[in-house]
Amino acid sequence: MTEVELVSATDLHNLLKHIYLRYGMSAEDATRVADVLVWAELQGRGGHGAVRTTRYVEMIRLGELDPLAVPETIVETPATLLVDAHGAAGPVAMTFGTDCAIARAAGQGGCFALVRHTTHTGALGFYVKRAAEAGFVALAFAAGKPLMAYHGAAVASASTSPIAIAIPSGQYGPMVLDMATSVASLGKLKQLAAMDAPLPDDWALTADGLPANRAVDAAIPLPLGGAKGSGLSLMFEAMTGVLGGWPVLAPSLGTTAQTGLGQNAMIMTLNPEAFGYRAAFLAAVDALIDKIRALPPRAGFAGVSLPGDRSTATERARLAAGIPLPAQLLRDLKALAADSA
Amino acid sequence: MTEVELVSATDLHNLLKHIYLRYGMSAEDATRVADVLVWAELQGRGGHGAVRTTRYVEMIRLGELDPLAVPETIVETPATLLVDAHGAAGPVAMTFGTDCAIARAAGQGGCFALVRHTTHTGALGFYVKRAAEAGFVALAFAAGKPLMAYHGAAVASASTSPIAIAIPSGQYGPMVLDMATSVASLGKLKQLAAMDAPLPDDWALTADGLPANRAVDAAIPLPLGGAKGSGLSLMFEAMTGVLGGWPVLAPSLGTTAQTGLGQNAMIMTLNPEAFGYRAAFLAAVDALIDKIRALPPRAGFAGVSLPGDRSTATERARLAAGIPLPAQLLRDLKALAADSA
Repeated sequence: MTEVELVSATDLHNLLKHIYLRYGMSAEDATRVADVLVWAELQGRGGHGAVRTTRYVEMIRLGELDPLAVPETIVETPATLLVDAHGAAGPVAMTFGTDCAIARAAGQGGCFALVRHTTHTGALGFYVKRAAEAGFVALAFAAGKPLMAYHGAAVASASTSPIAIAIPSGQYGPMVLDMATSVASLGKLKQLAAMDAPLPDDWALTADGLPANRAVDAAIPLPLGGAKGSGLSLMFEAMTGVLGGWPVLAPSLGTTAQTGLGQNAMIMTLNPEAFGYRAAFLAAVDALIDKIRALPPRAGFAGVSLPGDRSTATERARLAAGIPLPAQLLRDLKALAADSA
Repeated sequence: MTEVELVSATDLHNLLKHIYLRYGMSAEDATRVADVLVWAELQGRGGHGAVRTTRYVEMIRLGELDPLAVPETIVETPATLLVDAHGAAGPVAMTFGTDCAIARAAGQGGCFALVRHTTHTGALGFYVKRAAEAGFVALAFAAGKPLMAYHGAAVASASTSPIAIAIPSGQYGPMVLDMATSVASLGKLKQLAAMDAPLPDDWALTADGLPANRAVDAAIPLPLGGAKGSGLSLMFEAMTGVLGGWPVLAPSLGTTAQTGLGQNAMIMTLNPEAFGYRAAFLAAVDALIDKIRALPPRAGFAGVSLPGDRSTATERARLAAGIPLPAQLLRDLKALAADSA
């Protein structure tokens, strides 16, 4: 059993912010990074949470993440923006891109904002939810280095590219879907490995490209629905890095070197006003939510959930009781905060 | 065994066009519908092919499909279009929407075109491929009446909403992904039922909402990856019909009546010029295609395929040898063509 400590969201935010300040970020940027990592912890998505800080700091030391980089819109048309993050941290680059996409959609009806050359976007749900809280419909996807097996391949050859969608509602808060294109995330596989759990077919391959039947042998996640998941992942690489002049996948295939090219993302925003039915739209979202919640559950299910329900419940519990973090991780973070950069 | 006849693409196109002319469409619209149905047959997607004609004709008789309807852009902003199909056939409405979205993206960089109140979009891949052949990146999704079980529900409660993405390339033709958010389509389940095949877990429920272990008992397809597939489907309903003032899912739930509300779709187009790297983009797509094809296959796979590879091979074979159609379907189509409307 991993020893766990409870830490309040505020204390964790302060600790993380302190680390990023110490490693050269402005107060605003350090706050952005802490916002996104703490949000992921609150949502129960620890794989995108505080644990990333060790790696982010390593990337700063290697020069892959520039704590002083200022994201910049380098090409634009009425409906599109190309933001070059110049190696800024994902939360800094993606929040900038999201806010630009919101402002643009407010005036032009919709916007496609492509954010290139960031490091690790973090939990994509954060950004689409931010747009939905501002009243916009948002869809985002991201792509980066190969971690998952492309369908039929024996090696890591596709990103576990997430897709996230958020829809504002009238009285219930936004619906937020945030999912990877793999069956299971690397984080989930690690959790199962810690329990020495058996693994269902088609979840992962071993490092040698053979089916992994136990979580401890899992090294390469498999795509959701085989060709469907890896097809989406490939298309997301094409619509982000390849379209934006910063490809990551092709330059990373056939080499074992870490390319340090980071990640790219697309965030699309839509202004409900642009379709002429804003009030009716919000009421119709509420009606849809009501109908889905009222569906008869099948055997083995206590009820029917909406995207984001579990995360919202986890957030409520963790805001009240604290976030459970591995004690070793908390010690590592405190050491980073005390360390001289 | 179903008796099968081979028919050339040209003969099938003429036959279908003749039927739609007979049932009141203009020559241009009848051609559009035949184009999309024959394309689906050539691609090996018979479920979206000629077999739909019986139902389309029934919808014309019921007044659900208006053969004279002219799709119309009713609300627009620089980045968005709301097209009301007024009950026009999917191929007519979607081709109109796609061509508007292409023209808009040519000038504004990108476009979100929402097509509401069409009948059945047909194979979505057709429209995104059309955009990619014109040099644009395109992403489309559609939603309609409940056919699939929402994750955890015992009844049909979500659309099998497809998503399609096409990417132009430099020298290989477009990459086209076209997939449903269910594990298996109703068409595929019917094919398996004809062979009395066993069914893997999580593919479908019986009409009573219990797991179907044999294809003959399958009545309700299950979503891809459980909550992931039904989450995407729900979001696509929200971003199409709900956003466009023509919701289909909520009004259809809790009633056994056919609502006749049809389908809605969103097609997004992006001009690669808008990101400043058109030539580099096309070359980078080619490089990505080359790298994916060169991946080492895992045991049990002869090679690694790209989205659309199988359809392209099927199309080549069927253009040469003809399209295999059930003899009874061909007889039914000939009867419709001879019948007085």
